[in-house]
Parts: sequence; C-alpha cells; structure tokens
Amino acid sequence: MLSYPEKVMINDEIIDSENAKISVFDRGFLFGDGIYEVMLHMGNQLLLGEEHFQRLNASLIKTGIEMDTASIPGKIDRIIEAAGLQGQECLIYLQVTRGIAPRTHTFPVEATPTLMIYALPYQIPPIEERDLQAITTPEIRWSHCDIKTTALQGNVLSKEQAKQQGCFEALFVREGIITEGSHSNVFFVRNNVVYTHPANNFILNGITRLAVLDICHELGLTVIEEGIPASTLPSMDEAFLTGTTTQVAALRKIDEHVFYKGDSKGTVTRKIQEAFSQLKTRSLEVSV
Amino acid sequence: MLSYPEKVMINDEIIDSENAKISVFDRGFLFGDGIYEVMLHMGNQLLLGEEHFQRLNASLIKTGIEMDTASIPGKIDRIIEAAGLQGQECLIYLQVTRGIAPRTHTFPVEATPTLMIYALPYQIPPIEERDLQAITTPEIRWSHCDIKTTALQGNVLSKEQAKQQGCFEALFVREGIITEGSHSNVFFVRNNVVYTHPANNFILNGITRLAVLDICHELGLTVIEEGIPASTLPSMDEAFLTGTTTQVAALRKIDEHVFYKGDSKGTVTRKIQEAFSQLKTRSLEVSV
Repeated sequence: MLSYPEKVMINDEIIDSENAKISVFDRGFLFGDGIYEVMLHMGNQLLLGEEHFQRLNASLIKTGIEMDTASIPGKIDRIIEAAGLQGQECLIYLQVTRGIAPRTHTFPVEATPTLMIYALPYQIPPIEERDLQAITTPEIRWSHCDIKTTALQGNVLSKEQAKQQGCFEALFVREGIITEGSHSNVFFVRNNVVYTHPANNFILNGITRLAVLDICHELGLTVIEEGIPASTLPSMDEAFLTGTTTQVAALRKIDEHVFYKGDSKGTVTRKIQEAFSQLKTRSLEVSV
Repeated sequence: MLSYPEKVMINDEIIDSENAKISVFDRGFLFGDGIYEVMLHMGNQLLLGEEHFQRLNASLIKTGIEMDTASIPGKIDRIIEAAGLQGQECLIYLQVTRGIAPRTHTFPVEATPTLMIYALPYQIPPIEERDLQAITTPEIRWSHCDIKTTALQGNVLSKEQAKQQGCFEALFVREGIITEGSHSNVFFVRNNVVYTHPANNFILNGITRLAVLDICHELGLTVIEEGIPASTLPSMDEAFLTGTTTQVAALRKIDEHVFYKGDSKGTVTRKIQEAFSQLKTRSLEVSV
C-alpha cells in the first residue's frame, strides 16, 4: 500500500509518477482547497461507483468547485490501462482542486479545476484477518466533515496520535459523542442493536457505511442512527469500523475498553462482514 | 497583488514562476499538511521578523514538522535578489509542508519537509485609505486556529461568502463569541476600552495583533483580551482589523451595524493607525 503508483493522470495527461508535478500555485497546495475520493476497482468496474460519484458531485457543489464529472469514468479506465492494472483489484485515488491562480483566499475568477487520478494495485486483505484497536480523541476538525476535503491536517494529526499509541484509528468525540474515525466510520452493537452516528455535517457519509446500513436492513437488524456518548463505551458489546480500504473491520479495543479476546469477535460484526464479502463477490459476478 | 511572483524558491532552488512545480505526492497537496507565514520586507529587513519566526517555529512544533529554520533568512535574501526586489517593499510568502511520500495519513518516516518561498512587489496602501466592511458567520474551522496551517478550506469558503456580500472579511462566531476574521484579527472599542479575543486555540495570534497590543499599552489604552459576544456588536463604538497585509484597517460596518459614516473614523482606531505607521517608519530608519 505504501508505494507510489506507476502513472498519474493530471487533467488529461498521463505521466510517470516521478514526473507528476503540479504548480505550487495550485490551490490544493496553497489552501488545501480540494476534494477527493478513494474507490475500489474490481471486476472491471468500480465497487459502489454510483455512490462514490454522487458523493464526489456533492463535495464539488458544497465547495463551489465547478467540474463536470461525466468524463471521469473514461479517464479512470485510461489510467488503469496505462498502469497495466486491467482486470486486477486496484485502488483509485481521485482529487479535484479549485485550480491554479495567484494566491488569495477568494475563489479565482478564471481558474480551471485540477484533476488528478492514479491507480494502485491493491490486494485487499481478508476481512477476518484484521485485528484493530482505536483511541478516542477530542474532535479538532471543522464542522463540514460531510465534505471529503483535502484539508486534512486535523485528520493527519489525530491518526498519527493513534499510531503513536499503537492503534489503527482515532475516534473523534464532539461534545461527548463519538462521531467517526479520522478515515473511517464507526459502528457499535449493544443487545443486537446497531448504532452509528447520523450522516449530518459531523461525519463523512462513507460509501461502505451506506452499504453496511443496507446490509443491516437485509439482515433484519435494528439500526439506530445516533452517535453514542463516549461514556457509554463500556456498555457496548461490539464495535467495528467501515471504510473503502478498511472494509468492515472489527475493533478489539477502544481506549481501555476491550470488546473481544482471542478470536471471539462479536456475532453481529461477523454477520455483517460475511454479508459485505458476499456483496463484493456479487459485484464481481455481475461484471463478468 | 493578484499576480504571480517572478521567481519561486523550492527547497534550495530558484525557479521561474511558471516552472515552479512540486510533486503531486507532496503532503501539502494531498492533505493540506503544511504551515505558512506571510511577512513584509522593507528597508532591507523583515518587519517584526523575530515575531514571525517565533510563530513559524511554533507552527512547526505543533504540527510535528521537523525543519531547522535558521537558514531561512538567508534564503529570503536570495529570493528577493533573484526577483530583483532589493530595497523595495515586498511581501514574502513562505510555506513548509511535511514533504513527499506515498499517500497515507500518518507521518511519513523518511520524508524531507518541502520549503517554498517567493517575494512579491507590494506597494502598501496608506492605512487611512481603506474602507472595509465585514459579515459575521458561524465558525466552521477546526479548533487549532493557533496553527498557521495551509489546510485553509474553511477560511476560503468563509472569505468567499463575505466577498459575495460585498464585504472584505468574514468574522467567525464560535458559541456566540466573535473570535477573528478568515485572514485577520479583529478589535473592538467601547468607551475607550479596547477588546480583542485572547490568543488561545481559537485564533491565530497575529503579528500585527501583537504590535497593536504593544501600541495600546504605549498609548495608555485599557485592553481587555476577551472575545465579545456577537449580540453586543451594537454597543461597540469602533471596530478594526489587523493583519500583515491588512495592517490596521477600520471597519465601517459589520452585518447591519454601522460604526462610522463618511470619514468620521473612531478616534481610538485613528490613534492606533498613526502609531502603527510610526512603528513602520521607525523600523525603516533603524535599518538604514
């Protein structure tokens, strides 16, 4: 996962990774003034591609960046081909910034948005193998977490804090309530009821989160879209994270609260993991 | 002000502006994971340079970016010379990012921070000529506003909102209290007492803000470092903004509240403006 892609597409041009450069006057560099998506490409299609593009378009509208995204799927195919990744599972990273202009906070009048796309080979680890821990940390981010912004320094600092404590994720606590992780959504289970924070401006509405909500519905599980108070963590039976690269990952421990020992993952988590694996398999079959 | 510089220094290299590019894998581009300073250079020295470097070092420490800044003053001299701006008033823009690495939120182990510096000719407008208005807007930014981060999308969106309403600045209101502007600090005057938000994590402690606090002390003005509730705006006699490029700028109007008409700027604002002009003149004389 920690390697550079072979090729990068910048606007319409495909370039070797080491030569993939943008102007220092790109507002993505000067202001973090961009948005992005990370998607899985498998079986010659994007997993949950429609949902990713809906969110991409929503981020563009919310930030006032004007770009027609209709040509992007074709560009993704081109970059996958250029990287020699046809037919392989790969990760697509896509970033749009407000473009290149002399530095001033207000929107430039004439700038053309910058589009960057690359594809990385990505062997997804089996869901059941992951064994993750998290910390809780005070929310430091802005109040538009529903925008998939590239202005991610708050996420970066919090994730690094988790890593320093040997953990995979930092879960934000805003006014006592657990909202989401620095790069994933979080779910809890208590007495077979599933809890997750509602998709308001305090979380990014993850595509895997949406898929898991559908799965819960199919499995007949009761879901309450409410953020849980951090103080109620000890009363929870199970906890798991969702995300495009995280998939559905059981949490063994949050802070000092242990959810399971050994291999005894929660039964609800396991059911959802199985159903999510099947969703991916179905998606592969449909595309063949 | 809205033009590109002639030359840009990236790390140790001076490049023509149109060729000044960085890797798309620079964390400044991918994560807004950088910090910056804007400084005035006049009379062959930085105005309040020591204070700017103190803040630069504080931002580096708070973000965990490791860079020795001792060589930067020499680099600033070099870029000014390369741009042919010796002896002229100019604006120095300086940005440090966490460097170039494959994309993952946590700090890269081996990346070298990226340093970008450029100088722009800057004819500072006479202080008394500015005639500015502001709006108030709900705080949307993160809670580490004391870090001069390049992750500025919240500032960008709020400043644009002000511009759309014909105003120069957006003043953030956090839990009912006016904190600061999107790129300036704000002061109020009531019954000859000066109010400004304390330099905690909800504002960037502006270098001009600090100079104005010194000036208030010299002028024997009472200063209360407390944020004023937005609801008390109508009770204020005067309001002004401070910032490196904003200098000390009287506010004619905030939302619907008018502070002065015609040229009848508040007397306290005018006294502080005069003293700030003298500070700049003194700084020029010292350097000759």
